[in-house]
Amino acid sequence: MTGSPDKKSEVRPATGKLGILTPGLGAVATTFMAGVESVRRGLSKPIGSLTQMATIRLGKRTENRSPLIKDFVPLADLQDIVFGAWDPIPDDAYTAAKKAGVLEDRDLEPIKDFLSAIKPMPAAFENHFVTRIHGTNVKKGKNKRDIAEQIRADIRRFKEENGLDRVVIVWCASTEIYIKPGPQHATIEAFEKAMEANDDQIAPSMLYAYAAIMENVPFCNGAPNLSVDIPALVQCAIDRGVPISGKDFKTGQTWMKTVIAPGLKARMLGLEGWYSTNILGNRDGEVLDDPASFKTKEESKLSVLHTILQPDKYPDLYDGFSHVVRINYYPPRGDNKEGWDNIDIVGWMGYPMQIKVNFLCRDSILAAPIVLDLALFSDFAHRAGMKGIQEWLSFYYKSPMTAPGLQPEHDLFIQQTKLKNTLRHLMGEEQITHLGLEYYAS
Amino acid sequence: MTGSPDKKSEVRPATGKLGILTPGLGAVATTFMAGVESVRRGLSKPIGSLTQMATIRLGKRTENRSPLIKDFVPLADLQDIVFGAWDPIPDDAYTAAKKAGVLEDRDLEPIKDFLSAIKPMPAAFENHFVTRIHGTNVKKGKNKRDIAEQIRADIRRFKEENGLDRVVIVWCASTEIYIKPGPQHATIEAFEKAMEANDDQIAPSMLYAYAAIMENVPFCNGAPNLSVDIPALVQCAIDRGVPISGKDFKTGQTWMKTVIAPGLKARMLGLEGWYSTNILGNRDGEVLDDPASFKTKEESKLSVLHTILQPDKYPDLYDGFSHVVRINYYPPRGDNKEGWDNIDIVGWMGYPMQIKVNFLCRDSILAAPIVLDLALFSDFAHRAGMKGIQEWLSFYYKSPMTAPGLQPEHDLFIQQTKLKNTLRHLMGEEQITHLGLEYYAS
Amino acid sequence: MTGSPDKKSEVRPATGKLGILTPGLGAVATTFMAGVESVRRGLSKPIGSLTQMATIRLGKRTENRSPLIKDFVPLADLQDIVFGAWDPIPDDAYTAAKKAGVLEDRDLEPIKDFLSAIKPMPAAFENHFVTRIHGTNVKKGKNKRDIAEQIRADIRRFKEENGLDRVVIVWCASTEIYIKPGPQHATIEAFEKAMEANDDQIAPSMLYAYAAIMENVPFCNGAPNLSVDIPALVQCAIDRGVPISGKDFKTGQTWMKTVIAPGLKARMLGLEGWYSTNILGNRDGEVLDDPASFKTKEESKLSVLHTILQPDKYPDLYDGFSHVVRINYYPPRGDNKEGWDNIDIVGWMGYPMQIKVNFLCRDSILAAPIVLDLALFSDFAHRAGMKGIQEWLSFYYKSPMTAPGLQPEHDLFIQQTKLKNTLRHLMGEEQITHLGLEYYAS
Amino acid sequence: MTGSPDKKSEVRPATGKLGILTPGLGAVATTFMAGVESVRRGLSKPIGSLTQMATIRLGKRTENRSPLIKDFVPLADLQDIVFGAWDPIPDDAYTAAKKAGVLEDRDLEPIKDFLSAIKPMPAAFENHFVTRIHGTNVKKGKNKRDIAEQIRADIRRFKEENGLDRVVIVWCASTEIYIKPGPQHATIEAFEKAMEANDDQIAPSMLYAYAAIMENVPFCNGAPNLSVDIPALVQCAIDRGVPISGKDFKTGQTWMKTVIAPGLKARMLGLEGWYSTNILGNRDGEVLDDPASFKTKEESKLSVLHTILQPDKYPDLYDGFSHVVRINYYPPRGDNKEGWDNIDIVGWMGYPMQIKVNFLCRDSILAAPIVLDLALFSDFAHRAGMKGIQEWLSFYYKSPMTAPGLQPEHDLFIQQTKLKNTLRHLMGEEQITHLGLEYYAS
Repeated sequence: MTGSPDKKSEVRPATGKLGILTPGLGAVATTFMAGVESVRRGLSKPIGSLTQMATIRLGKRTENRSPLIKDFVPLADLQDIVFGAWDPIPDDAYTAAKKAGVLEDRDLEPIKDFLSAIKPMPAAFENHFVTRIHGTNVKKGKNKRDIAEQIRADIRRFKEENGLDRVVIVWCASTEIYIKPGPQHATIEAFEKAMEANDDQIAPSMLYAYAAIMENVPFCNGAPNLSVDIPALVQCAIDRGVPISGKDFKTGQTWMKTVIAPGLKARMLGLEGWYSTNILGNRDGEVLDDPASFKTKEESKLSVLHTILQPDKYPDLYDGFSHVVRINYYPPRGDNKEGWDNIDIVGWMGYPMQIKVNFLCRDSILAAPIVLDLALFSDFAHRAGMKGIQEWLSFYYKSPMTAPGLQPEHDLFIQQTKLKNTLRHLMGEEQITHLGLEYYAS
Repeated sequence: MTGSPDKKSEVRPATGKLGILTPGLGAVATTFMAGVESVRRGLSKPIGSLTQMATIRLGKRTENRSPLIKDFVPLADLQDIVFGAWDPIPDDAYTAAKKAGVLEDRDLEPIKDFLSAIKPMPAAFENHFVTRIHGTNVKKGKNKRDIAEQIRADIRRFKEENGLDRVVIVWCASTEIYIKPGPQHATIEAFEKAMEANDDQIAPSMLYAYAAIMENVPFCNGAPNLSVDIPALVQCAIDRGVPISGKDFKTGQTWMKTVIAPGLKARMLGLEGWYSTNILGNRDGEVLDDPASFKTKEESKLSVLHTILQPDKYPDLYDGFSHVVRINYYPPRGDNKEGWDNIDIVGWMGYPMQIKVNFLCRDSILAAPIVLDLALFSDFAHRAGMKGIQEWLSFYYKSPMTAPGLQPEHDLFIQQTKLKNTLRHLMGEEQITHLGLEYYAS
Repeated sequence: MTGSPDKKSEVRPATGKLGILTPGLGAVATTFMAGVESVRRGLSKPIGSLTQMATIRLGKRTENRSPLIKDFVPLADLQDIVFGAWDPIPDDAYTAAKKAGVLEDRDLEPIKDFLSAIKPMPAAFENHFVTRIHGTNVKKGKNKRDIAEQIRADIRRFKEENGLDRVVIVWCASTEIYIKPGPQHATIEAFEKAMEANDDQIAPSMLYAYAAIMENVPFCNGAPNLSVDIPALVQCAIDRGVPISGKDFKTGQTWMKTVIAPGLKARMLGLEGWYSTNILGNRDGEVLDDPASFKTKEESKLSVLHTILQPDKYPDLYDGFSHVVRINYYPPRGDNKEGWDNIDIVGWMGYPMQIKVNFLCRDSILAAPIVLDLALFSDFAHRAGMKGIQEWLSFYYKSPMTAPGLQPEHDLFIQQTKLKNTLRHLMGEEQITHLGLEYYAS
Repeated sequence: MTGSPDKKSEVRPATGKLGILTPGLGAVATTFMAGVESVRRGLSKPIGSLTQMATIRLGKRTENRSPLIKDFVPLADLQDIVFGAWDPIPDDAYTAAKKAGVLEDRDLEPIKDFLSAIKPMPAAFENHFVTRIHGTNVKKGKNKRDIAEQIRADIRRFKEENGLDRVVIVWCASTEIYIKPGPQHATIEAFEKAMEANDDQIAPSMLYAYAAIMENVPFCNGAPNLSVDIPALVQCAIDRGVPISGKDFKTGQTWMKTVIAPGLKARMLGLEGWYSTNILGNRDGEVLDDPASFKTKEESKLSVLHTILQPDKYPDLYDGFSHVVRINYYPPRGDNKEGWDNIDIVGWMGYPMQIKVNFLCRDSILAAPIVLDLALFSDFAHRAGMKGIQEWLSFYYKSPMTAPGLQPEHDLFIQQTKLKNTLRHLMGEEQITHLGLEYYAS
C-alpha cells in the first residue's frame, strides 16, 4: 500500500486559533498548560511531545529525509492555542498547580500571570461517580441532558469570546466508578432519553463527550471511564464527522509494560507471572483508593498483557500466567508515582529468569505532552476529514478504542509504526517497511 | 513495496541433513545442543527460538493468517541436524555441560549418551588472544594459513563422515582481545599473505571465518571479535555466494537496552545517563576480567544507545548523555548473569525521572536459541540465494554488520519488522505496515 | 549487674530424649525436621540456628573466650530429638515436603525413610478459623474442651511410646482469623467454661496451648494467632512453671525491618514512609489471601516500626510516617517469598533519601532453624526453672510477648543482646556492655 | 561494671566559644556549616545528629528516664560555635555551596550573609596526593615542617581573633593516594625529620593532624587517609592529652553494610558474596576516579565485612565469600550518591537467598551531622580528660582506629552500645545490658 499524493492537498490548513478545553484543571491539565506557556516563552523544551520534537523518516535510508513531524504535517502552532477548563474545585490554574505540587516554584512563578487568568467553568460533577472529591463549582440543572446543554453553551461561548477557529476537548479529570455498557448507551436516541431520565448509568464524562460531538469538537478521553466509548457516541461521531479517541493516557507502569512485553514476545520468551505494584500520593491516588474507581482502572491495566502476548496463539509461552496489579495510596510519594514490577520469564528448556523494574516516574510530567499531542493530532485529523475512532492514536492510550471486531493493539512499537505510517499515508509518502534489501543487491 | 510471488519458488528445499559446527564447546554450545536434543526427544519446548515457536502475520488483520514461521518458510527440520565442535579443552559435550553448570542434572542425565558422543576437534587457539583459558586440544601448524587449511579439512571430513547435505558454522567461543581493522584485513590477497606471515593481527576466529567461506559454509559470529567483519572476508563471501552475519549474540543487558531505549525515544523522553553494571561468574566472566578482552566487549556494548537515540538528530534530548558499562567477575553468580541498570530520563519541562532494571538472567539460556535460529536462517538464506552480510538477522546481534555506509540498526522492534518483512518478501507475501485505515473507511 | 555463679548449677542437665511436637506438618515443619535429620546424618549444616552455630563472647575481648552456645549452655543434643505432629491433611512428612516444594529432591530422597515414618495425628481444626484449607484428618469431640483433652492424651501417648524425658510444642500451622482478647480469655476458669460452651472466640490454637501447659510442656507460638497470649494461659503457665513464648516467627520482611529500622534510628534519620509489599505463592499465601487471616498478620507486621522508632519520643523524626504493608498471593513464586520495601527517609536540613530493599527469600528456610532454636531454648529454660513469658526469646518473633505494662522490644540487636546476656546471666558469667575503656587507660 | 559517680564532676564545663576548623570547604563542610546556622536561626532541625536529637535511656525501663544526650552530657551549645576552614580553592562557603549543588537555593539564600563571610585560609595541598583537584589557594614553605608550622599559626590566630575557648579540627577534604605506614611514621622524631626532609610519605593531611595535636586541638579524620593513624601521632596525642579519632566518615553504602551484616550474623545466615556498586557525580567521585585514591577508599570499604562476620570463627558461614566494591563517576547523579548492593546469603540446608539494596542517598547530607557530632563529642572528651584514640566514636567511621592489638568494631549496633555506655559511664550512670529479668521474677 503506497501513499496517495492527492490526499495531501485535502487537509485543511491550520489557520486561526485553536481552543483546548479540559474537563479537569488538576495536576495533569495545569502541568500541560504551564508547559506549553513555558515553551512559548522560550523557558523550556516540549520534551515528551511527538508533535513538537519527533522527526519522521521519509523515503529510503540513504535519502536522509527526516523532517520534524510538525514541519511535515500541518499542525496548529503553539502560539495559536487558547486554554480553558471545567473543574468542580474553583481554583484558578496557578492555585491548582501549587496544590498539585508537580512543578517547582522556579517554573511556576515566571508564568503566574498566565496561569492565574485561567479559571475553571463550573463542572458537570456527581459524587456518586467520584467519591473522594468534594467540589463546589458544580453545574445544576433539571436533568443530565440539561447539564449537557450547558456544556455545549460553554463551548460556544469559549469559542466566541476568544475568537477561535476550532476547539478540541481532552479529558484530564478523575477516574469514575466502573460502568458496563448497557442499552442506555446503544443508540443516540436511547442515550438522549437516558440523560433526560437522569439514568445512573450516564456518567458526567459522557455528557462532555456528547456535548463535544454535538459541537463538532474532537474528544480525547484520558481516563479509563467509558465516556465516549459507547456505541451511541461512536456512531454519532462518525455521522457528524468528528474524530474521537481513548481511553486512559498511557503513562508510567502500563507504558513500560507495552515496551517490555513486546520485547519478551519478540524473543519468544515465556511468561509465568507479572506482578505490578504502584505507590502514588496525589489526588489520583486518593480517588483510586476507592475500590469502585480502582476497578475501572484495573480493567484498563489488566487487558494490556493478554492482547500483546496472545496466549491463544502461544499457549506454550503465555497460557495461564499470573497478572497482579496493585495501586496503593502512599502520601509521601506526592505526585511522583513509583512502580515496581516483578516479571517471571521462562527461557530455553524451561529455565526461569526474572526482570525487576523500578520506575520512579512523575505522572503529570508524562501525561502533559500526551494532552498536547492528542489535541494537535485530533485537530489535524479533523481537518484531514478523518472521523469516528482514531485508532492510529492508540500509541497514547492504555485501552485503545478500535472498530468493533478488532483487537486493540497495545504493542508500543506497532502503535508507533501505525501512527507514523498513517501520517505518511495522509501526506502522500511511501510506507516504511524496513525491508531494505536494495542495499544488498545480489 | 509488495512481495514477489516468483521469489518463493527460487528457494531450494531443505532436503538432507544439516551439520552445525561450533567453534567453542562451552556453556553456550552445550546448552544449545542439549536443548535441541531434548526437544527432539519431546522432553522440552524450544522456548526463545523464533524459527521453532514464532508465528508470522500474513495479509490483513481480518484474514487471520498467522502460520508458524517454520510452516511458512522452508527451514531444516530439527531431526535433520548433526552437531560438531572445536574446543581447546578436550572435554566431550556432557563433561563440558556439567562443568558449565547451566543445566541441572534432571535435564542432562536423560541425554547423557547423546552429549557424551560429541567430542571437540582440536581448536585453532592462541593464548595471546584469550589469556584466561589454557587448552591442550590445540591445532599445530607451520603458520596461520596452514591452521586455516586444517579447519577446512575438518569441515569436509565432518560433512563426509556424517553424510551431510549442508553445513553452517556458528561461533560460540570466547571474546578475543581488541583488534582494529588494518591493511591485513583489506583484501583477500593481503589477508592470505598475512596468514602465511603469522601476522599478529590475524586472530583465530578469522581463520574459522575464512575456512567457512572457502567451504561455502555460512558463518555466524556470536562474539564481538572482528572475525568475519573485515573487508577481505565480506567481499569473499559475496563473491562465493555465502551468507555471513555478526557480531555478538544479543542476550541479557544489551537486549534489554534495545527494548527500553526505543521505548524512550518513541515517547521523545530525554536521557541524561545510563549506568549498567553486570555481575557474572562463568568462564565468560573470567575472560572479560582481562581488560583487553573487555575492551572488545565494551565497544560492542557502548555503541547501541547512540545508534538508537541519534543524538545528532535530537540534541535537546540525547546530546552528551553519560553511558557507563561495567562487567564484574563475581563467582557466586555462576552462569547466571545479573544486570542492574540505572536510567536517568528527562520529561516535560525538564523534570527528571529514573528507571532501574534488575535482570536476573541466564546467559547461555538466552544464547542457545539464538544459535539455533542463526544456523537455520543462515542455511535458509543460502538456499534462497542470499549472499554476503545478512542485515535482516540484526535482531540477534549486539553489533549488527551492515553494508558500508549504513548505520547498524539496534532497535529491536525495527529489527523484528525487518526480519519478518524479509521473510514475507522472500516468500512472495505483502509487506506489513500497520496502516490499517481500511477498517475505518470514511 | 553481674552474673550469679550459683545459678549455673541450678540448671537440670539435658539427659534423655526430647520430643518436639508441631501443630502443622506443612512447609515449615517438614523443612525443620528434614534439616535436623540431614544434620544428624552429616549431610548438611544447621545454618541459621543460634543453638547450633553461634558463639558467645565471655569476659573481656582480650580473653578470647568465645565458645559455641551449645558448648556453654546445656542444650538437648540433636541426636536426642524425636519428632511428632498434628495436621488436618493426613500426608506423612515426606509427602507433605514434596507438596510444599521447598526442598529439592537431592535433599529429600536421602532421608525419605525418615520422613515417611512421620505421620500426623488428627488435628484440632475448624474451617471457620482458616477458610482456605480443607482437611480430613480432624478431631471430633463433644466440645472444644473435649478436643483439648484429646490433644493432652496425644502428648502423653507420644511421650510414652517414644520413651521421652521431655516434650516441647512449637506451633507451625496456619494463621487463623483475627480474634480480640475478651472475657473468655481473662481467667482459666472463664476459658475452660468457654471451651465447654464451644465459644467461637476459642480458636484451635488455644486448645493446643492449653493442652501443652496442662501437660507441663513449653509452648512456642509461630503464628500471629492470639493462642497462648491471653491472660488465662499466661497466668496458668506461671502457676504451673511452664515457659511460653510468641508470637509469629520473624522471618523475611519483618526481620529485615527490625534490622534496618534500628539502623535509621541509631543515626537519627527521619522516616516519612515505609511501603512494603510481599509476593508469595505457597499455602501461607493462599491463607493470607483471606482478608480475615490477613488482618491478624497485618496487626503483627504493623506494630514493629512504631515500637522501634518511638514517635512519641522523637516527634520531629517519626511522627505520622506512612506505613503500608501488602501481601499478595502470586503463584509463580511458590514457597519463595519476595519482599520489596521502599523506605523514604529524611536527613540533615530535611533532605529526602530513599532505600529500596528487594529480598528474595525462602520462608520455610528462614523459619526452620527458628523452630529448632525455640524448642531447644524453651526446653533449657524449663530446666533452668524459668516460667511464663520468655521475653529473652523476642529475637525470634514478630510480635514478642512481654510482661503486662512493658513495650515489646522489636530491635533485633537489643533482642540479641538480651538473649545473650540472659544466657550469660543464667550461666554465671559477666554481662557484656561494650564499654571497653580499659584498653585506653589514661 | 557500674558507673562511677565521681567521674561526672571531673568533666570541665563547656563555657566560652568553640571553634570548628575544617580542612576542606567543599560539599561536606559547607553543608555542615549551613545546617548548623539554619538550626541556630530556627529554619531547620538537626536531623541525623545524635548530639542534638538522640535520647539516652538511663536506669531501668520502668523508670522512664530518657533525657536528650545534650541535656545529659555537657556539650558545647550550637550558639557558641565559630567556623573556619582551609581549602586550595579560594571560594567562600556560599560560592562553594552553590558549586557543590547539595543544598537548594531556598535553603542557601536565607543564610547567604553568613556563608559568604567564611573564607578559606590557604591550604596545605599537593597535587601528588590528590591528582584531580587544581587549587591556587595553597601554602608555600621551605619544607613540610614549615607548612605544618603555618597551620599551627593559623589555628592560634583563628582562636585569638575569634576569642575562642577551645578548637576542634575535623578533616572534610578529599581522599589522598594510598600510603603505607613506614619508618617515617613510627616516632615523633622520625616524623619531624621526615617533614623537614620533604619525605613523599608525609601527606598534607598528616601536617594538619600534627599541627592540631601540637596545639592541643582534638583531631577527627573524615577521610580514609592515614593522617593521624600513625604511631608517631597516636603516641603524641596520648602524651599531650589530646583526643583523636578516625578514619573515614561512615555514610552511605558502608553504613548500610554495618547495619545489614550484623543482622545476617545475628541470625547465623551464611554469606556467599556481596557485590556493591556506587554511582556518584560530585568532586569526590572525580577524585575517586583516580585509581590511586580509589585504592585508599577500597581498603577502607573492604575490611568492614570481614571484621563483622569473623570468617575465622565461623568458617562454615563466612569463609571465602566474594566481596566486590566498585565506585563509578557518573555525572548525572551530582552530589547524590546511589548504591546498589547484591547480597547472596545462605540459609538452612544450604539454600541460597538474595537481598538487593538500592540506596538513593546524599553524601553530604549524611556526612554533615557526623562532622557536628564528632566535633562536639571530641571537645567533650577533651574536657572529660580522655586522650589518644577515642574508640567509642567508632560509630561514625568506616575504619575505626583502635588500640594496637584490638580488632576495630564495625557492627553499628555494638558501636552504638559502646558510645552510649561510654557516656553513661562518664556521667556516673549504670551500664545498660538489656537483661531485664526483674520483670519476670519467679
